[in-house]
Amino acid sequence: MADRVLEFANPVFASYAAYAGLASMKMMGMMVVTVYYRRMKGVHANPEDTLFTSFGAKDKAVVRTDHPDIERVRRLHLNDLENIPPFLVVGLLYVLTKPSSDVAVWHFRAFLASRLLHTACYLGGLQPWRSIFFVFGYVTTVSMAVQVVAIGSL
Amino acid sequence: MADRVLEFANPVFASYAAYAGLASMKMMGMMVVTVYYRRMKGVHANPEDTLFTSFGAKDKAVVRTDHPDIERVRRLHLNDLENIPPFLVVGLLYVLTKPSSDVAVWHFRAFLASRLLHTACYLGGLQPWRSIFFVFGYVTTVSMAVQVVAIGSL
Amino acid sequence: MADRVLEFANPVFASYAAYAGLASMKMMGMMVVTVYYRRMKGVHANPEDTLFTSFGAKDKAVVRTDHPDIERVRRLHLNDLENIPPFLVVGLLYVLTKPSSDVAVWHFRAFLASRLLHTACYLGGLQPWRSIFFVFGYVTTVSMAVQVVAIGSL
Repeated sequence: MADRVLEFANPVFASYAAYAGLASMKMMGMMVVTVYYRRMKGVHANPEDTLFTSFGAKDKAVVRTDHPDIERVRRLHLNDLENIPPFLVVGLLYVLTKPSSDVAVWHFRAFLASRLLHTACYLGGLQPWRSIFFVFGYVTTVSMAVQVVAIGSL
Repeated sequence: MADRVLEFANPVFASYAAYAGLASMKMMGMMVVTVYYRRMKGVHANPEDTLFTSFGAKDKAVVRTDHPDIERVRRLHLNDLENIPPFLVVGLLYVLTKPSSDVAVWHFRAFLASRLLHTACYLGGLQPWRSIFFVFGYVTTVSMAVQVVAIGSL
Repeated sequence: MADRVLEFANPVFASYAAYAGLASMKMMGMMVVTVYYRRMKGVHANPEDTLFTSFGAKDKAVVRTDHPDIERVRRLHLNDLENIPPFLVVGLLYVLTKPSSDVAVWHFRAFLASRLLHTACYLGGLQPWRSIFFVFGYVTTVSMAVQVVAIGSL
């Protein structure tokens, strides 16, 4: 039934919801990684945050915004902000186009897997792998967006 | 009826919609705060923006990206971008899990309240309060995401 | 029928979906613009990315985060991240308020047009036009958010 698309009884929606929830948590997990790096290295963005430095780094706590390791994590997080929110919304609209279940589920899996591999490669500084996985996730979202626009009306 | 989840007649959805709309406006309000600070202090990110400096600061209008007060507002705005879009999408999926009305409404209230208090503490430089309210909003979204993933299928 | 709001047979939803898909692709297109500028100018954010410099700029590839042209593109992209995700979610909730078709479609068109014109003016450094188009898109989203909150319940 057409009315039952956005229900967990619909396998395409149930799959989208699971991957959307995981992708959201992955993106939010970057905040935990940032806090961990800041604590361990004693490098903070606000003067009042220096109290959160771990004991081992208390004596070298500073306010700076150019520490290479922390800026790397922040660039990675920003890349998530550029890619994951569009996936979340476009994915929901794509579910409403009633795609074939297999094709849809593999879109969601490809997206999440590519973002996790992109993250590992960004933290490890591995190129061209980081770019390859980035493009994979990007193409997945664009593929869904094109199908949504094709069925929609301008 | 299952089909009627995403309707304003459903109190859980009506509550989600109101808090999602307010959280979106709160996040977009940060742009107004940034423009206000830039005007008053004459500190701009683009050379062509200096024309927007308020009369009192016309003679000291500059292009710089390291003014502490303005960077503080921008970090706060970025923190919203990291937290509010996931709440918006995860909250909608959580409504579709048909949670108990009371529990759901308190998730939405806790999230918005924690973000407003986080904002006040960020602007005032109040730690550890800022981190406490941040964690509160974070846990609210993760709680909803976990419930969505648990009902979804991978 | 109330249950059939989120269907492509509903012209308001079909219009929203098309403009939401295009706005998502527009935002994601900023990543392509950034990569293009970085390649052409040989200016990268990570040491391992210098291998992506175009042939003409190979000998001057550097890691720096203050190149004016590239920072301009990144500020424009950040402005999209601040405006487009709220539009995507608020727009969907607005569709669920069952607005009149004409009014709704013109909201979506005004938003996308204003963001495209804002982009052109940002890249060209055209003020006050950039701010005028920014405000246009901003007001469109706030207008929808106010209607959602008005029908929702706190």
